[in-house]
Order: sequence, then structure tokens, then C-alpha cells
Amino acid sequence: MATAGKVIKCKAAVAWEPNKPLVIEEIEVAPPQANEVRIKIVATGVCHSDLYHLFESMNNAYPIVLGHEGAGIIESVGPGVTEFQPGDKVIPLPVPQCRECRFCKSPKTNQCEKAWVADSGNVMALEDSRFTCKGKKVLQFMGTSTFSEYTVLNQIAVAKIDPAAPLDKVCLLGCGICTGYGAAVNTAKVEPGSTCAVFGLGAVGLAAVMGCYVAGAKRIIAVDINPEKFEKAKVFGATDFINPKDHDKPIHEVLIEMTDGGVDFSLECVGNVGVMRSALESCIKGWGVSVIVGFTNMDDFAARPIQLIGGRTWKGSLVGGFKSKDGVPEMVKAYLNKKIKLDEFITHNMTLAQVNDAIELMKQGKCIRTVLSVSPQ
Amino acid sequence: MATAGKVIKCKAAVAWEPNKPLVIEEIEVAPPQANEVRIKIVATGVCHSDLYHLFESMNNAYPIVLGHEGAGIIESVGPGVTEFQPGDKVIPLPVPQCRECRFCKSPKTNQCEKAWVADSGNVMALEDSRFTCKGKKVLQFMGTSTFSEYTVLNQIAVAKIDPAAPLDKVCLLGCGICTGYGAAVNTAKVEPGSTCAVFGLGAVGLAAVMGCYVAGAKRIIAVDINPEKFEKAKVFGATDFINPKDHDKPIHEVLIEMTDGGVDFSLECVGNVGVMRSALESCIKGWGVSVIVGFTNMDDFAARPIQLIGGRTWKGSLVGGFKSKDGVPEMVKAYLNKKIKLDEFITHNMTLAQVNDAIELMKQGKCIRTVLSVSPQ
Ligand SMILES: NC(=O)c1ccc[n+]([C@@H]2O[C@H](COP(=O)([O-])OP(=O)(O)OC[C@H]3O[C@@H](n4cnc5c(N)ncnc54)[C@H](O)[C@@H]3O)[C@@H](O)[C@H]2O)c1
Ligand SMILES: NC(=O)c1ccc[n+]([C@@H]2O[C@H](COP(=O)([O-])OP(=O)(O)OC[C@H]3O[C@@H](n4cnc5c(N)ncnc54)[C@H](O)[C@@H]3O)[C@@H](O)[C@H]2O)c1
Ligand SMILES: [Zn+2]
Ligand SMILES: [Zn+2]
Ligand SMILES: [Zn+2]
Ligand SMILES: [Zn+2]
Repeated sequence: MATAGKVIKCKAAVAWEPNKPLVIEEIEVAPPQANEVRIKIVATGVCHSDLYHLFESMNNAYPIVLGHEGAGIIESVGPGVTEFQPGDKVIPLPVPQCRECRFCKSPKTNQCEKAWVADSGNVMALEDSRFTCKGKKVLQFMGTSTFSEYTVLNQIAVAKIDPAAPLDKVCLLGCGICTGYGAAVNTAKVEPGSTCAVFGLGAVGLAAVMGCYVAGAKRIIAVDINPEKFEKAKVFGATDFINPKDHDKPIHEVLIEMTDGGVDFSLECVGNVGVMRSALESCIKGWGVSVIVGFTNMDDFAARPIQLIGGRTWKGSLVGGFKSKDGVPEMVKAYLNKKIKLDEFITHNMTLAQVNDAIELMKQGKCIRTVLSVSPQ
Repeated sequence: MATAGKVIKCKAAVAWEPNKPLVIEEIEVAPPQANEVRIKIVATGVCHSDLYHLFESMNNAYPIVLGHEGAGIIESVGPGVTEFQPGDKVIPLPVPQCRECRFCKSPKTNQCEKAWVADSGNVMALEDSRFTCKGKKVLQFMGTSTFSEYTVLNQIAVAKIDPAAPLDKVCLLGCGICTGYGAAVNTAKVEPGSTCAVFGLGAVGLAAVMGCYVAGAKRIIAVDINPEKFEKAKVFGATDFINPKDHDKPIHEVLIEMTDGGVDFSLECVGNVGVMRSALESCIKGWGVSVIVGFTNMDDFAARPIQLIGGRTWKGSLVGGFKSKDGVPEMVKAYLNKKIKLDEFITHNMTLAQVNDAIELMKQGKCIRTVLSVSPQ
């Protein structure tokens, strides 16, 4: 391509400071260095984790280009890259898969040693980015930064996908849908005939509902304080719908009564430590498994020891436990083969220029996923 | 027997109120009712859970006969009991196995529906006991109450054991040793070649060390603030010994450094929510499993969500996850076949009359297990 080896000037939505609208700026994207690829982002979803960084985390990593749920086309590759060629359709991976570290080599985990999400829970912003804007270094979010027409990624954080895949749909597999679906299927390991509860019915929670359904759960209880979400939950397989606001009792007591002792599996897809506790306490003693999917690093989650001594298990899931380079292309295939739904998550289509509207929609609970078209394909 | 069908007057150590020495009293033990057996207790251990009730729980269930780690001989049986005969050697079970409830029928759990330990974590005292003293009803502790020459139990809470078993040794299998050993083997499912950490080196923790060793762990890090425990830990297979007081850093950082990232399995055998957090945080990301064995219901345990999202699993274990009626006799056999150690846990032998001395020894960290001889065999 004509742009290979050169700095690309393009549009990106830059977050200059927390709690402020993003600003569409012209930025410079340097060429990929060794083992890196430069990607033209075609489409991106907006995930709550973008909002978390901007509004909730008090993490002072700015300026930054947010966005981590995208899909695009390889524009050029840096030295040493043989796996990708210009024109390949790809999905950026917020959690990489280097295939070399002890974590990648273990079948037990998807948490590559090179993952940007530090154990402190705070470092989601990479200093070592290829972005500049108005002479300032701009940070890269979750090693991806998809709210930009071009972004440079290490090749360990890129999955090549089926060329038949529609990028404005499969972008959602970069984070939210794999996250919820995999949390049910890979982390909770939902069993046929089981009873499940999913707390929070954003795209992550709805994908968890879909995961429970595909795994054969016989009863899937969808819980949200926004009853507008229930209709969608039905589409993905939920059988029961609970709004905690409709009940005077604590929600775990409601669920325990409804299920004669508690659910077999619960998934927290909100990012609220109080809900994490409710999700655990909604599980049946003896074998209940609760998975934390929602993210916050502002508070501790907590419970009484008897909850675990009573036989419950508390787990967590990062992007659904999928080894990303292997798993994301498989999920793309599953979508193309109609084994999983994707279109039904998309409630709005906008352009990158409208990113603040998309963020506002999510803040107000008025969307499931907005897909932003970024560059023309 | 001459006593069958009659009230037995005998000695028991009665706890009249919290934080006070037990009093050796003459009590009345009514005959067993339907599905009950009356047991002559020959020997009993003193477990920290007895001390928990007396000194820590603020649970106002008094008067009560404590003790739940005993072994004895069936004196008489009530109507409907066919499994036991007078003269059988038995171990009382703090967690019963009714074989009929959905929990007993599931291979996933040992938490019988009829277990006395309520989900609230508070009810360890049964109103429906056969004890009276000085005209007052005396409560039964954990459905067992082994600090008494005679005690009446529901048959679902009694395990018949090999007649060759020495009761003054195998009494310890009624709680502490099965608890720690099973927490490692059944709940954590410690793997060959793994690295483990055990926090707290009372009998429960030492049994956990033994469990890790038998499971083939290559490195077993024993952690206690009382360095007098380390010599014993070596006997059971510990390879490294850490006193948190010797370090300025938080203990989880010490362990993470020692193990290049954290341990594969950790077991909390103290009953302290701060230690529970340390045990979780000592685990390696990706696949670390931490098991809460120590008991307290006074506080919440807590951690940051990233600890679980980072791939760790938090579990708990009740009497080691053994289905009690099946598991305890098997552990007795394992002892008789020299597959597990028991004698090495016993640091003191006393009589029931010396129960307060035994409690004091444990409080001061001067014993592992004291075995009290209760009735002559
Ligand atoms: N673990 C991971 O790898 C991972 C990946 C992606 C997203 N996430 C996290 O997952 C969470 C969900 O993301 P999303 O994009 O679906 O967000 P979203 O904002 O679209 O959905 C959140 C939903 O939770 C509901 N909710 C809020 N408070 C609630 C309560 N008290 N009880 C029940 N429901 C409640 C909201 O009404 C909303 O429907 C976020 O915390 C996000 O950061 C985690
Ligand atoms: N889950 C169950 O089924 C079950 C069954 C039996 C006992 N328990 C519980 O297990 C725990 C241990 O019982 P035990 O009889 O072995 O008690 P114990 O008192 O003999 O041993 C406790 C050990 O913990 C050590 N310790 C105290 N604070 C510590 C700290 N901050 N860091 C490291 N070590 C510390 C003490 O020095 C002592 O060696 C108790 O909480 C008891 O109630 C649970
Ligand atoms: Zn890796
Ligand atoms: Zn996301
Ligand atoms: Zn049962
Ligand atoms: Zn005990």
C-alpha cells in the first residue's frame, strides 16, 4: 500500500481527560515496528469497559484513544511479521496470546503473560503507543485503541479471521460477546439441565444468557434494574426476568425462593461489588458456581466465609476465558455458521464522529451495542 | 446392655457461658429416640472450632456440651436403627450423610441437606438434644457433643469404623484431620508437581500439608506466625517455612517472589479473613486455587475483583469435602494401612477432667492436638 512505512494522518476520538466528551482529532499513527501490524479499523463496538476508564476508574492515563472491540484490515506489517499480510481481515485482541509463555502453554488459562491488564487491575493504558496528536504522545487503551481509523498492534494481539466475515458485526467478538458467552461456557462451565442467573443485561450479560442457553441450561433467570432489557434477554434464551427494584427482599433471597435453594450457576455482568455478592449468595450451597465478569477496581468484593465453606465456588473471567487468537476466529466461524447470534446485540449503528452519542446511549441504558463505522471498508 | 432404655447419668464438660472454663458436671443423657444411637465416647480431640464457639463467635447458645472430634462405642440404639449394634466402634460426624437428600445424591458435594451448620454460619447448636443438667436442657454442639461420656446422635451422623481402629487415635478423623487432608485432596484437588502454600499449622493445616504431600506436590510452603509449628510441618512434608513476622512485606508478596508468580494452590487453615485474602493473593494468576478451611463468621472476607478476573478460583471446604459416612471409615482404613499419619498430630494426652488445660494449650499455641480420654474402653 502507498501508506506502508509512512506516518498516517487520520481521525481518532481522543480522550484528553476523564469525564469529558471524546474529541475527534487528526492524529499521527507511526508505522508498525518489529512484530507489529498497522490495522485500518473498519468498525468498533462501544463496551462498558471504555466507559469505566473514562468515568469510573479514576485512572489518570490521558490522553488516550479508547475502544477495544473492533475489526479491521491489515494496512501494513512491521519487520518479522509473517502471519499477516496487507488486506487480511483481523480482530484486535484486548488480551493477547503469545503462544510462548507458561500461561499460553497451559490449557488452564487464557491469561497470557504479556497481557496488558496488570494484576493491580489498573494498567490498561500502554505508554508504548504509535499515536501522537498535536505533538503529544497519546496512550493506547488495552493494547488496541479501536476508536481510530488506524491503530498499531503487536501481532500477538491480533486474530486473523474468515474473509467472509462482516466486520461491522464481528467487531463485537473482540470483547463483549466472547466475554459473556465464554464466561458461561468456558469459566462457569454451565451444564445441561442446570438453572442459571445472569445479573446485568448489557451485551456482556446477554451473551452470557446466550452461553447458558447454548450449554443447555433449562432455566435462565435474567436480572436487571432496567426492565427495558428483558425483551432482548428473551431473544437470547432467558426464561425468567427479575427486576430487583420490584422486590423488597434482597435479590438473592428472591432467587433462592424461586429456585428452591439457589441457582447452579450465576454470572455477574454489571461491575458492581454489591451485585457480585448477590450473585454468589444466589447460588445453591454444595455446588453453586458464581463468575465475576463485570469489572471494577474501585472496591473490594466481599462475603461471609460460610458462603464458600458451604460449597460455593467464586471465579472470574477475562474475555470469556478464550485463548484469544484461537478462540475469536472460532467464534467468527460459529457466527457465520449461525451457531451464535450477533446481529441481535446491535441496537444502533453510527459513525466514529458520533462516538459521544454512543457513549451517552450506554450510560443511559438505552442501547445494547452501538457499532460505529470507522473507516470505509 | 444394662443401661439400654434408661437415662444414663454420667460426666460431661458443660459450657455454661462464653469465655468461661468448662465445668465437669453430672448430666443426664436420655435414651436414643427413633433413628438415634447412644454412644459411649472413649476419646475426643479438641479442635479450634470448639474454641471458636466458646471465645470468638458471640453466639449465645448456652449451656452446651462442646466437642465434635470423638470416637466411641455404641451403647444402645433407638427404634428403627438397623445399621448399628451395641459394641460397634463409631465416629460421630459433625456433618451428617443422610444418603437421601439431593446433596447426598450428588457426587459434587458432602453438604447433606440435614447438616446442622446453617447457611447463616451461626447455628452450630441443636436445641433438640438428649442432655439435661441440674434440671436444665443442655444444647448439643455440631450434632455431636463429644466432651461427654455419653451422647445421643441421629444415625445419619455416625460412621461405623474398623473394629481394629484405636479410638484414641482415630477420634481425630472426626474433624480436623479429614478437614485439612480433604481440603487439599478433594476440594483444592492438588496436582502432582504443584506448588502449595498452607496458612496456619494447627492440626487442620498440618493435615492439609499431608494432603498436599500425598497428592504429589513438589513444594509445600508452610506459613505460621508461630515458628514452633515448623518442625511438625516438616514431618508432614512441608519443604519451606515462612513466618510472616520475619518479613516487612505483605506475606503474599513474599510468596509470589519465592515462587516466581505465586503458588498453584493455597489453603487457609487459620480462620482469619485477612489471612484468607493473603492466601488468595498468594496464588498465581491464570489458575491458582485458594481454599478457605479456617472458620469465622464474624467478618467478611474480601479482595479486589481483578484477583478472580485474573484467573484465580476461591473455594471453601467443610470437613474436607468428604461425604462423611463413606469418607471417615475410609480414612480410618488409610490410617490402619499406614497411608496417612495420625499419631504425629497428638502432642498431649489428658483426661476429660483436664479439658480446660487442653483448651488453654490450644489457645496458647502449645499443642497440635490434645486427645482426651473420656470413658474407659
Ligand atoms: N471480564 C471481562 O473480560 C470484561 C470484558 C468486557 C466487559 N466487562 C465488564 O462487563 C460489564 C458489563 O459490560 P456491558 O458492556 O455489558 O455494560 P452495559 O452498561 O451495557 O450493561 C450493564 C447492565 O447492568 C445493568 N445493571 C446496573 N446495575 C445493576 C444492578 N444493581 N443489578 C442488575 N443489573 C444492573 C444495567 O442496567 C445494564 O443493563 C462491565 O463492568 C464491563 O466493564 C468485562
Ligand atoms: N472448614 C471446616 O470444616 C473446619 C473443620 C475444623 C476446623 N476448622 C477451622 O480450621 C481452623 C484451624 O483449626 P485448628 O484446630 O488447626 O486450629 P489451631 O488453633 O490449632 O491452629 C491455628 C494455627 O493458625 C496459626 N495462625 C494464627 N494466626 C495466623 C496468621 N495470621 N498467619 C498464619 N498462621 C496463623 C496459629 O499459630 C496456629 O498454629 C479453625 O478456624 C477451625 O475453626 C474448619
Ligand atoms: Zn502468552
Ligand atoms: Zn470490553
Ligand atoms: Zn443428605
Ligand atoms: Zn473441628
